[in-house]
Amino acid sequence: MNLRSGRLKGKMTADAASFTSSIEFDRRIFNADIKCNIAHTTMLKEQRIIEAADADKIIKTLNELESEGISVLKLDLSVEDIHMALENYVTERIGEVAGFMHTGKSRNDQVATDLRLILKEEIEEIEDDILNFIENIIEMASQHTETIMVGYTHLQHAQPTTFAHHLLAYANEIRRDFERIADAKKRVDMCPLGAAAMTGTGFPIDRDRTAQLLGFSRVMENSMDAVSSRDFMAETVFALAMLSSNLSKISEEMIIWSTYEFRLIEISDKYSSTSSIMPQKKNPDVAEISRSKTAVLYGELMTILSILKALPHSYNRDLQEVTPHLWNAIDTAHSMLNIMNDMLSSVSFNAERGIELAMANFSTATELADLMVRENNLPFRIAHQIVGRTVSEAISNGIRPEDIDSKFLDKIARDINGTPLNISEELVENALNPYEIIKARDVKGGPSPKAVTESILSLKEFVKASRSN
Amino acid sequence: MNLRSGRLKGKMTADAASFTSSIEFDRRIFNADIKCNIAHTTMLKEQRIIEAADADKIIKTLNELESEGISVLKLDLSVEDIHMALENYVTERIGEVAGFMHTGKSRNDQVATDLRLILKEEIEEIEDDILNFIENIIEMASQHTETIMVGYTHLQHAQPTTFAHHLLAYANEIRRDFERIADAKKRVDMCPLGAAAMTGTGFPIDRDRTAQLLGFSRVMENSMDAVSSRDFMAETVFALAMLSSNLSKISEEMIIWSTYEFRLIEISDKYSSTSSIMPQKKNPDVAEISRSKTAVLYGELMTILSILKALPHSYNRDLQEVTPHLWNAIDTAHSMLNIMNDMLSSVSFNAERGIELAMANFSTATELADLMVRENNLPFRIAHQIVGRTVSEAISNGIRPEDIDSKFLDKIARDINGTPLNISEELVENALNPYEIIKARDVKGGPSPKAVTESILSLKEFVKASRSN
Amino acid sequence: MNLRSGRLKGKMTADAASFTSSIEFDRRIFNADIKCNIAHTTMLKEQRIIEAADADKIIKTLNELESEGISVLKLDLSVEDIHMALENYVTERIGEVAGFMHTGKSRNDQVATDLRLILKEEIEEIEDDILNFIENIIEMASQHTETIMVGYTHLQHAQPTTFAHHLLAYANEIRRDFERIADAKKRVDMCPLGAAAMTGTGFPIDRDRTAQLLGFSRVMENSMDAVSSRDFMAETVFALAMLSSNLSKISEEMIIWSTYEFRLIEISDKYSSTSSIMPQKKNPDVAEISRSKTAVLYGELMTILSILKALPHSYNRDLQEVTPHLWNAIDTAHSMLNIMNDMLSSVSFNAERGIELAMANFSTATELADLMVRENNLPFRIAHQIVGRTVSEAISNGIRPEDIDSKFLDKIARDINGTPLNISEELVENALNPYEIIKARDVKGGPSPKAVTESILSLKEFVKASRSN
Amino acid sequence: MNLRSGRLKGKMTADAASFTSSIEFDRRIFNADIKCNIAHTTMLKEQRIIEAADADKIIKTLNELESEGISVLKLDLSVEDIHMALENYVTERIGEVAGFMHTGKSRNDQVATDLRLILKEEIEEIEDDILNFIENIIEMASQHTETIMVGYTHLQHAQPTTFAHHLLAYANEIRRDFERIADAKKRVDMCPLGAAAMTGTGFPIDRDRTAQLLGFSRVMENSMDAVSSRDFMAETVFALAMLSSNLSKISEEMIIWSTYEFRLIEISDKYSSTSSIMPQKKNPDVAEISRSKTAVLYGELMTILSILKALPHSYNRDLQEVTPHLWNAIDTAHSMLNIMNDMLSSVSFNAERGIELAMANFSTATELADLMVRENNLPFRIAHQIVGRTVSEAISNGIRPEDIDSKFLDKIARDINGTPLNISEELVENALNPYEIIKARDVKGGPSPKAVTESILSLKEFVKASRSN
Repeated sequence: MNLRSGRLKGKMTADAASFTSSIEFDRRIFNADIKCNIAHTTMLKEQRIIEAADADKIIKTLNELESEGISVLKLDLSVEDIHMALENYVTERIGEVAGFMHTGKSRNDQVATDLRLILKEEIEEIEDDILNFIENIIEMASQHTETIMVGYTHLQHAQPTTFAHHLLAYANEIRRDFERIADAKKRVDMCPLGAAAMTGTGFPIDRDRTAQLLGFSRVMENSMDAVSSRDFMAETVFALAMLSSNLSKISEEMIIWSTYEFRLIEISDKYSSTSSIMPQKKNPDVAEISRSKTAVLYGELMTILSILKALPHSYNRDLQEVTPHLWNAIDTAHSMLNIMNDMLSSVSFNAERGIELAMANFSTATELADLMVRENNLPFRIAHQIVGRTVSEAISNGIRPEDIDSKFLDKIARDINGTPLNISEELVENALNPYEIIKARDVKGGPSPKAVTESILSLKEFVKASRSN
Repeated sequence: MNLRSGRLKGKMTADAASFTSSIEFDRRIFNADIKCNIAHTTMLKEQRIIEAADADKIIKTLNELESEGISVLKLDLSVEDIHMALENYVTERIGEVAGFMHTGKSRNDQVATDLRLILKEEIEEIEDDILNFIENIIEMASQHTETIMVGYTHLQHAQPTTFAHHLLAYANEIRRDFERIADAKKRVDMCPLGAAAMTGTGFPIDRDRTAQLLGFSRVMENSMDAVSSRDFMAETVFALAMLSSNLSKISEEMIIWSTYEFRLIEISDKYSSTSSIMPQKKNPDVAEISRSKTAVLYGELMTILSILKALPHSYNRDLQEVTPHLWNAIDTAHSMLNIMNDMLSSVSFNAERGIELAMANFSTATELADLMVRENNLPFRIAHQIVGRTVSEAISNGIRPEDIDSKFLDKIARDINGTPLNISEELVENALNPYEIIKARDVKGGPSPKAVTESILSLKEFVKASRSN
Repeated sequence: MNLRSGRLKGKMTADAASFTSSIEFDRRIFNADIKCNIAHTTMLKEQRIIEAADADKIIKTLNELESEGISVLKLDLSVEDIHMALENYVTERIGEVAGFMHTGKSRNDQVATDLRLILKEEIEEIEDDILNFIENIIEMASQHTETIMVGYTHLQHAQPTTFAHHLLAYANEIRRDFERIADAKKRVDMCPLGAAAMTGTGFPIDRDRTAQLLGFSRVMENSMDAVSSRDFMAETVFALAMLSSNLSKISEEMIIWSTYEFRLIEISDKYSSTSSIMPQKKNPDVAEISRSKTAVLYGELMTILSILKALPHSYNRDLQEVTPHLWNAIDTAHSMLNIMNDMLSSVSFNAERGIELAMANFSTATELADLMVRENNLPFRIAHQIVGRTVSEAISNGIRPEDIDSKFLDKIARDINGTPLNISEELVENALNPYEIIKARDVKGGPSPKAVTESILSLKEFVKASRSN
Repeated sequence: MNLRSGRLKGKMTADAASFTSSIEFDRRIFNADIKCNIAHTTMLKEQRIIEAADADKIIKTLNELESEGISVLKLDLSVEDIHMALENYVTERIGEVAGFMHTGKSRNDQVATDLRLILKEEIEEIEDDILNFIENIIEMASQHTETIMVGYTHLQHAQPTTFAHHLLAYANEIRRDFERIADAKKRVDMCPLGAAAMTGTGFPIDRDRTAQLLGFSRVMENSMDAVSSRDFMAETVFALAMLSSNLSKISEEMIIWSTYEFRLIEISDKYSSTSSIMPQKKNPDVAEISRSKTAVLYGELMTILSILKALPHSYNRDLQEVTPHLWNAIDTAHSMLNIMNDMLSSVSFNAERGIELAMANFSTATELADLMVRENNLPFRIAHQIVGRTVSEAISNGIRPEDIDSKFLDKIARDINGTPLNISEELVENALNPYEIIKARDVKGGPSPKAVTESILSLKEFVKASRSN
């Protein structure tokens, strides 16, 4: 049967049919479309809108189709979309009575319902993947609570920290991505079914019941809104784009840290390549491709937002073009998340280099200033000046950070503040020792092994609570 | 005092200072910066990290600065940012003791805290504006529950509806925008203070206490994450971009509906302009500018996401460039929301034209098909074919929708299905009468006056509940 | 043979191989890769860098591969890319001597060369399509030089024009797209071959000769730039995005003009669809999908630009991810262009409705003002005021534009300017007659049949000149 | 005088006036608007459309306004835009005769003309800046033709090169940006004046003459296209976004190269900052802000493209919103270009570190493989395998690149290929010596001092030719 048996006489050209067809992406909603038809038919039967016997025949046939699988459907450009293909199948099996399943609904509300059903599942898979990622990071961090490295701001040495502390930054960032995606899901989890073409129907359907049968948390009320809104897609893709943006920080650090110059980590050969012309190369290809996939998600978001701008109500065919970009965003985020998880797990950290860099370039200076504040009750700005001059003179004179001593400090303090500091050598030494510094940074969320262990516990609780939902 | 008294000797060139300065946008965080310093100093005093007397002097001076206002600060390129300007002010008043307020914090955590404090307030204003908008729509809708118009799909006549029903689509869409912004706020409402430069501090500060003093719901735990994450800005701007996208649908409809050809509405002269050369013109300028502002929000989102891509931890100066785009997004969304609210309220709907269009072009056809399903127990697809042919022949023969009668239908039904329908003239007439059709579309979220009234109630409850939070 | 026989020991995981593989998109460069290898080998032979006999064997085998086609290559994830697959093929046929064809080049310069070769061809096809589109518009315009319609500003009636004049706006816009794409082609048409991995080679290759053999206009000189720049892709995609933006104007007008309210055009059934539930519908699906494809091109552009941001020199694997977005942009623009061309050609213009609208709503007012300037030597602003008041009073009193006469004008002129106008009835009548107005708008680029005919000639010359290049 | 004296009665609200006003950005077109009015009035006089005496009075007054400057105009929300403000000024000076200057034009064509006039100038300034930048790079490169460094792919050591060669990559990239911007200028350099509101005029104006008086190269013919197209703005902004993308590569390299780990360069203190809490820091702030500005240009491009999507002809108020984004793009690109130029010039390259890195990590491996191809006539793939194994064993056994000798190679060659290589020690030594390698890479565009000197010459010619245009 062809829908065009309505008012139109001419047939679409093959080019136009191909240009406007959604068949390629409809495969993804096959199961959802069956579920949707079964739920709707069940409700129609319960409301006595259609005969119980007819409903049962329809539902039985739909169940059969589900077990046979999509391959039995004729999915080509001769059918407009999966809904038609499915209806044709049922009609061939049980005759015109198949048509009753469309009482009180339309392709407009049905496709919106199908998409939401599938998307909910896809989002739940991504939620699972994020939790796995966080667990792996926790596992890695647990082994590195005393692995010293220098922390960077502006990619310059800033202050000593640990690899565990750095890893927990990753975990906390994608934890928010989890929250964001879960929030987006609340707006995916709305049932448009029964909105029909745009104004609902005159049949006494029960929209709450269909929503319940399909496992939706709420009905998407206004029928025009229900068929014409795709904000749930844009929001999901934004949440994934943000996730990918956070993952791209990790990619970037893997790339930089595995340079010859940094040598902080080695990525497993499994996630590297060499060169056709330079056999000495070991390239961080997975991290690079992953970094570039962030841009793919940005592009998909921009496409979707641009499609939606200034579209009048209610359904416009433009909305069909949103869907493939949603799926591509989902698939891209999914593979990016999993491969990054695998790659990060494969990383071995060069602890020797970590401590070497932490001691090389005055990243301990802040602690030295803090020491003067604590011991000499100096205002921080004065301490900052003294330390600034200390670093500056040390660099000019080729003095290494660990060789700075109390006397050196006193000379400069006298210059700047008029009096020496008289801090004990031991305290000065500790202030310049990354281990001691980190141990002292025991504030909530800080790098001390104790603080990191508490952060790990709090993340574990988050994962546990999220899994049990 | 100048920070550069640290290691650097040369001065920034004026061009470089201007290129990297945030002073222009720092004005916006003036009050937040004071609050932040007061809360931090209070906590330092409570924790006995600094002397109570020093703390009191600092707090008193900060309170004085707040009442004097930003104009007493010297805000030009000679100071690096507002934090320096503020510290210079306090130092001038109470001397070097001012420096104690910086114990255990840094500009990195402070600016992040300031921005979050202000943004929370800005978001709450936008939430209020959305609720106002919804209330105005409710008010308008209440007056139009029986105002007939045709609903469109593909900008073609689809089915009869009412202006109230259409207005409620707007309300439900921006209700989700409210939810989205409220969800984003949860991730704005986290306190980074105490993360200091990136690894916290060795002073025994109490991060929970500062968060509480500043009214934050939770501490942003990991100190590297705390200073280097701007996902809260991207998410807020996305939520505003989505809001603007939904508003652009309204703009588009205002523009199309006020054409000579549609004549469905008249926008008040207050929101229109005329032409320098064509005196007959009445142009919907506010709706057009508003439509274009959607693109501004899209651009700001893209800017922010692009800045964030592949930045390593922790703070990079790039992050400074995110802020002005956040403020521009906030201001644009704010003015767009309010002006659209005013303009929409000013619209007068042409009820006569509404009913004329609803009757002109077979938008009643769906109901005719539904009638055959109900009365003759025809599968919907057969009914669809009969109505399709009916419309097609009516158009060919110049028959108007309201002139279709039972006999006309029977002829076509016989052709297609072999038997006539024998539906009573009265039922056919009702099926072609927009008033009757709408009354019958009584399903949840549908256009019947009863369903619309229920939707209005549910929206009112939403507004009430949201206001009381 | 596997490249990984270099330094790396571990094998990539299947997931990582699939994540980083370019095989899916490499098919598109198969022919180019053969050409590239043949040209390079020819040059190596001419420069006596490799033995003539070896070169001949290689070239013969490559020619055979070309006639056999891509299907003989084993293209799966076990080979890294098409270059390896091709080399494996030649090696199987003629042994290790195959390896000589890689003397003095690398995959980095080779892939860049392949992509440029293919892209040049693709661009030339799009150039052809644009010229065809312009010719079709010329053809349509030639038939409509006297077909009156109202021109719009702000979607409000502005001034009378003709359908031909409007069509020529389309033609002139996409003529600039042609220029833009041709300009982009100049920067595609540069040969990177011989840049090798990034610093050229120690072999005495002749880069000018290879470029000549491949038909490139210039060598892409600096070898680091040659392998790491993808600005030619971004520029091409921008040019296509701009083209699609211009095409989206046409889509939008087709959608609006085919509404029941405008009824200015009818799109052929071949490019329309109906509804599963509303048999009276005729939906402009092709125009809608086309409009949405504009957003797809915007997204691809954003993806490419985001990938390129802040990548250091020289080759990074991120660059690989640019290519599929280029191809998708090319394919999308291509199908959009052709289907829009077909659809536009299928449109029938409703001439009766055109003149009806041109006369309905004072679009003649500008001419009336101009008349007063000419006849009464009034400054335009005074004339504008008189006409403004005229329109305003006519609307208030239900007077139609064609019923305005000299007396009516005089009354208002006296009010505003103190004196009547005393313009003859005939002149007033002409000023209100769209045919007369259009005939008078005889300025270059204006709507008069004469001016339009000249514009058509100029476009024809442009097409002819462009074809002969 | 107020335009609204036309048909409209109500006044715009202050909010609506502010929301739709362009006054803030109109200042930028003040001079252009005067020029435009003078040229148009001159043509009207020449065509005897208006009286010579009136024309002279108008022109004289406009010239006076130009010397008095914009401050004499009342530019606030009470006037709609600069055109009105300017007309009001002339009217106040010479009375209603001022109105004659508007004969045969409209604000629609006038604003388009003004924008194009100014934009041409702005583009020419940016062209100048690019040429300056290229000259500075040439200057730097001339001093570094023998300064060794390692070149990177995937941020891993690839092959030895020189700082000069690397700098020339920058120069060649922005040379294409110059070409691109010059091409965009061709489409800015078109005169829309005389298109009036959208259909030209009935007055016998001479559009070619006005174009000539204003210095435009061609008339923008079709009058609807002339007033409604903003592709010239999108194209200009794209060209600037692409330029900024190329500059962001430089920023990224400055940031990475100035890390403690790379230590390849030192940026002058003039373009760096330190930290409020970490006095040892020297941060590359200018490079970071510059990197982030790329994202600003991307966002502006996306905003403009989104505004333009699916706008029907001809003028819509949305177009007004394009302009500020154009100006922001221009200003951002301008400051970015100049500050990057200054910063790059301030960089000192650490030649010792350059050679150290070039020798550290087997970046000479390619040359070693090439040597085997040349000396032993081995196919490259075999040579690649031998070198791959060599590097792998050297790394395992802690052998430094410079310690590899002929014997070591022979052992591995025998393993892989069955026979030793018997290459002389001297040749092996040279192949591992970066100076020798670079000298040998003498191909066009390669790093040899000779090739670099030729590249510099070719760039100098380009600059000279571009300046003389």
